[in-house]
Amino acid sequence: MCSLLQRAMEDLIKVFYCYSGKEGDKYKLNKKELKNMLQEELADFLNGSNDSSMVEKIMQDLDENKDGEVDFQEFVILVAALTVACNEFFVDCIKKDEAHKKSGEGHK
Amino acid sequence: MCSLLQRAMEDLIKVFYCYSGKEGDKYKLNKKELKNMLQEELADFLNGSNDSSMVEKIMQDLDENKDGEVDFQEFVILVAALTVACNEFFVDCIKKDEAHKKSGEGHK
Repeated sequence: MCSLLQRAMEDLIKVFYCYSGKEGDKYKLNKKELKNMLQEELADFLNGSNDSSMVEKIMQDLDENKDGEVDFQEFVILVAALTVACNEFFVDCIKKDEAHKKSGEGHK
Repeated sequence: MCSLLQRAMEDLIKVFYCYSGKEGDKYKLNKKELKNMLQEELADFLNGSNDSSMVEKIMQDLDENKDGEVDFQEFVILVAALTVACNEFFVDCIKKDEAHKKSGEGHK
């Protein structure tokens, strides 16, 4: 049986190849494939910023070895950074909520 | 609707809190929680190496800020490194298989 963590790791690999396999080097995302991936998988995160300049910026930031393409390791770094940012956002919400409840209890 | 990539990111957050919430600081994995997580979620990867010295080694490697606990960012670094290693393993297998098929065709 596959654990939730193993399923998540498998999903990351699946998502990458779903887009990287469309044209050119099937082990790398070119600019068009990266744009498709960002628009279809991360639309909620990049809402309103799906224009070419945003894709260009993300490509430049990710493409550490400057070959104009994003390999699997560079893709995982993007996902890791986004997941850490999401987590921080949720933790902040929870902590604010707890502080709010606590101050509410103090006023009873 | 949630994309496959968003589900994977959500799963990473879920797995972390499933273990980190058991005792002490609920936003961090202590040694016992890390051990439980490794054994339950990554048994296939660490098969036969689930002993205390392995947990100790992973804890030391991950715990960048040396507080004896693993925070979410340190956890994501572990998962990212494992996923990249898995991917490299699969890519090698596929490439070997393709090379094998190609050499087979050459001998027809």
